[in-house]
Amino acid sequence: MTRGSSKLRVIPLGGLNEIGKNMTLIEYKNEIIVIDCGLSFPEDEMLGIDIVIPDITYLLKNKEKVKGIFITHGHEDHIGAIPYVLKKLNVPIYATKLSLGLIEVKLKEHKFNNAQLIKVDAGQKISFNNMEIEFIRVNHSIPDACSIAVTTDIGTIFHTGDFKIDYTPIDEDVMDFHRIAEIGKKGVLLMMADSTNVERNGSTMSERTVGDTLDKIFMNAQGRIIIATFASNIHRVQQIINSAQKYNRKVAVSGRSMVNVVNVATDLGYLTMPDDILIDLNEIKNYKDNEIVIVTTGSQGEPMSALSRMASSEHKKMEIIPGDLVVISAHPIPGNEKTVSRVINQLFEKGADVIYDDLADVHVSGHACKEELKLMHRLVKPKYFVPVHGEFRHLKQHGELAVSLGMPEENVFIMSSGSVLELDRNSAKIVGTVPSGRILVDGLGVGDVGNIVLRDRKHLSEDGLMVVVVTISKEDGKVLAGPDIISRGFVYVRESEDLIEKAKLVVKEALSQCEQKQIREWAQLKSTIKDELKNYLYEKTKRNPMILPIIMEV
Amino acid sequence: MTRGSSKLRVIPLGGLNEIGKNMTLIEYKNEIIVIDCGLSFPEDEMLGIDIVIPDITYLLKNKEKVKGIFITHGHEDHIGAIPYVLKKLNVPIYATKLSLGLIEVKLKEHKFNNAQLIKVDAGQKISFNNMEIEFIRVNHSIPDACSIAVTTDIGTIFHTGDFKIDYTPIDEDVMDFHRIAEIGKKGVLLMMADSTNVERNGSTMSERTVGDTLDKIFMNAQGRIIIATFASNIHRVQQIINSAQKYNRKVAVSGRSMVNVVNVATDLGYLTMPDDILIDLNEIKNYKDNEIVIVTTGSQGEPMSALSRMASSEHKKMEIIPGDLVVISAHPIPGNEKTVSRVINQLFEKGADVIYDDLADVHVSGHACKEELKLMHRLVKPKYFVPVHGEFRHLKQHGELAVSLGMPEENVFIMSSGSVLELDRNSAKIVGTVPSGRILVDGLGVGDVGNIVLRDRKHLSEDGLMVVVVTISKEDGKVLAGPDIISRGFVYVRESEDLIEKAKLVVKEALSQCEQKQIREWAQLKSTIKDELKNYLYEKTKRNPMILPIIMEV
Repeated sequence: MTRGSSKLRVIPLGGLNEIGKNMTLIEYKNEIIVIDCGLSFPEDEMLGIDIVIPDITYLLKNKEKVKGIFITHGHEDHIGAIPYVLKKLNVPIYATKLSLGLIEVKLKEHKFNNAQLIKVDAGQKISFNNMEIEFIRVNHSIPDACSIAVTTDIGTIFHTGDFKIDYTPIDEDVMDFHRIAEIGKKGVLLMMADSTNVERNGSTMSERTVGDTLDKIFMNAQGRIIIATFASNIHRVQQIINSAQKYNRKVAVSGRSMVNVVNVATDLGYLTMPDDILIDLNEIKNYKDNEIVIVTTGSQGEPMSALSRMASSEHKKMEIIPGDLVVISAHPIPGNEKTVSRVINQLFEKGADVIYDDLADVHVSGHACKEELKLMHRLVKPKYFVPVHGEFRHLKQHGELAVSLGMPEENVFIMSSGSVLELDRNSAKIVGTVPSGRILVDGLGVGDVGNIVLRDRKHLSEDGLMVVVVTISKEDGKVLAGPDIISRGFVYVRESEDLIEKAKLVVKEALSQCEQKQIREWAQLKSTIKDELKNYLYEKTKRNPMILPIIMEV
Repeated sequence: MTRGSSKLRVIPLGGLNEIGKNMTLIEYKNEIIVIDCGLSFPEDEMLGIDIVIPDITYLLKNKEKVKGIFITHGHEDHIGAIPYVLKKLNVPIYATKLSLGLIEVKLKEHKFNNAQLIKVDAGQKISFNNMEIEFIRVNHSIPDACSIAVTTDIGTIFHTGDFKIDYTPIDEDVMDFHRIAEIGKKGVLLMMADSTNVERNGSTMSERTVGDTLDKIFMNAQGRIIIATFASNIHRVQQIINSAQKYNRKVAVSGRSMVNVVNVATDLGYLTMPDDILIDLNEIKNYKDNEIVIVTTGSQGEPMSALSRMASSEHKKMEIIPGDLVVISAHPIPGNEKTVSRVINQLFEKGADVIYDDLADVHVSGHACKEELKLMHRLVKPKYFVPVHGEFRHLKQHGELAVSLGMPEENVFIMSSGSVLELDRNSAKIVGTVPSGRILVDGLGVGDVGNIVLRDRKHLSEDGLMVVVVTISKEDGKVLAGPDIISRGFVYVRESEDLIEKAKLVVKEALSQCEQKQIREWAQLKSTIKDELKNYLYEKTKRNPMILPIIMEV
């Protein structure tokens, strides 16, 4: 018997009540393993933030226990925080070949050279003193995705990872139904399962259906074809290449992440194609329009992406011309609807024809819908269930789905990131919490932007600011220079000179009041200036710019 | 023959290549009429802006010609700019009874008392010297909606307004197919038609189908029912009242605009109900949970709306309790998906059950889908066609729909707001543009926030700011006080004291360099400080705060 808790603990540090930054700890005796290590993208109110990563305080406190990070698949919301975490806690990373290839690209960008990357295959098991971790093949919108089963002497935890059920995947690498059934038959103590699509009835269509649509599009297209999709959706890219080959088109790749992923996937054998089909984007001018297909990033309308730059004529190597056919082979992620729509409008304005999700079956989801989830629940038939990877609405409805399949309500745990589920053979309960939350990354700063900074950014973004500077005499407090007023983001100054001049008078008046009352403390001077100016500006404009009074003493 | 152009001119000032701020001018000889006068809501990048209204420079220049504003229906994107426009150009407003009632509420809020409001009925015609304007009943998601036909001796212009085809509308006030057919038969020179739903196949369901769903929901509900919908969707509210009556529930109304609209609609006879069914929100505690239904605003997740306040426990009069059933009877307008989702999550977290669009048929659109549009095109059979009310993608596809019905391509004009279409009996062409664009309303300011202010707000929102103040001597340029540094929205100052101190040193260094080089001009001093500091901060943080150097001279 090793030291540490003899109970099995499950601690999600991200991915619950949110989409993204998936990370779950499993702790037993003196060992902790981490499943996934993802980032999320900032919410609208996180102004200026680049990405968000999980809080790993608990891991850092228990450094010596951490055996490694186990990656289900290579999407950003599962691997994106790895460089940040490794800088603080350099533990081994276990992942399948493609995931590892994508992690390597990421670490290279971060100039992190001493990672311990360990390749595993689906079906393989890794053993520690008290846990055995097994990777099990599932299907998803990226190849080489796995569920992870963790077996201890108390019982088995089955984490589905992100998955869908595709009976006809592009790589023929079908989900390992037999192994999952076997594990389920032996008995699973706890299942954690992907809740993303729990609100959708029926089943997700096979990736192959997109191939059929693409084939039809290629058959009819007269000019160039430009297809935007997620870089990581390698099966989608494979199908584009297949159609290109069928209809005698060359394939050029555009967008940094698309180029990276195509390179990695080709090197590792996840993309297969004739030797001469790929051409450089610079070479497209050497071919006729109907001999070209361009695969690009930008399916979410991201302003700096290759497709957006094409649509707004800012792409260095190519521009959209009338007769181009643009296919947006993706569905907007919630929140991106308007940016995608803007790109579609710009493309139409340039004379391109645009095909997108609303108009044709050019995309399928990578996540299991209700009927697929039911199959997973039936196969694994766990004693306890924790829905993961979803907002509260998804977790709740996934819990209800489990109950509809016969699970007792008290065996379903709707958890939050940071809460701790403790299990033994016959019981499970939430016993407390560990530090968790959102660490904001802004430029080089990790965690140095918090609520106060964000609140100020929001205030500045809505009403701008007004800086008031006065120089006063050390000796007698008399005003020596100013008040000067500088405003930004408040009103268009040239048209509001009058307002600014009057604001100066308000400040002068406030200062002379202070002088009369013999107020000399800076704090009080500043708050008087601020209050008077605030009232004045609000009355005149119904706006509340941030007011920054600055007093200089000479 | 009156003076002025003898050609018929059509000038959309809004609603093309955008959703909202619908406004179209029709000019013939010495007369101009305006169809609709709407606002739009700010785009994400219009930080701090409240609403957006059309630019009416052209109308103001041609004041004496303007005969009146003709309103198709009472939605904000058709009437919302009226108070702003009337303040500059007080012309008569012609509208049907309900639209007029809603306009009156709006004008009262703006304390505008001397409007000339003229009630018209569907079927009625208003004549000027050279134009006759006719209101024709259509169906939409608000009662009393009309198309408008403008007849001149050159020909007839038919503007559909927003419409759908509902063969079984709640108020039995079916679209006037016969009159539209009659007008079409006589010959229509130009049609302008709603393009909102042109991407959707088939037909929009009748509003009645929502009533069926609501009935089922009421039949099964055990606790309180809370239904959020658009205040202006009076037929929806009527159906909620009908179901409430059937299942013996009282109806309480929550949210300012919902209260306003229910009052106006009841007064004017657009809502019918038993005398005692409406109760005050304060009275709900006097009834059992299953005797209550609350109709509320907030179906778009607007942060200050009644539903959002209920969901976040900030509503003064009620809170969500376990057992409540919340129905969101609306579809998120593009861009609102995340705020709606946030409210749904909060409601679930409070223990409510939530029914929304994805899960049940609790909403139908107010706009015509493809098959309905085709019927309109067939009935009106215009010579020329201008698709309106849509982004470019919608306009383009609506144009293609017209062509698919046999219209020659050259008879379709995809116009932009501000462009001028000139017609005579046998020809039509775009002949130029008039001033148009977006006038931003921020607080009391109409048009005083422009691109520079917005650019500054964006900059401030992403990286915050750093103010640097130095007081120097008038005589010799020596630094007398400072440099002082104040930052907001950049870094959390207490944790970055070191960075700020070093930044001061950078400024000191820059100043002493200037001194050595005998640089005394403020502009050059400031730009040196700015450049040095910018480089330093970017190197240390990869961020670019706005830097405001201020020099005081004493």
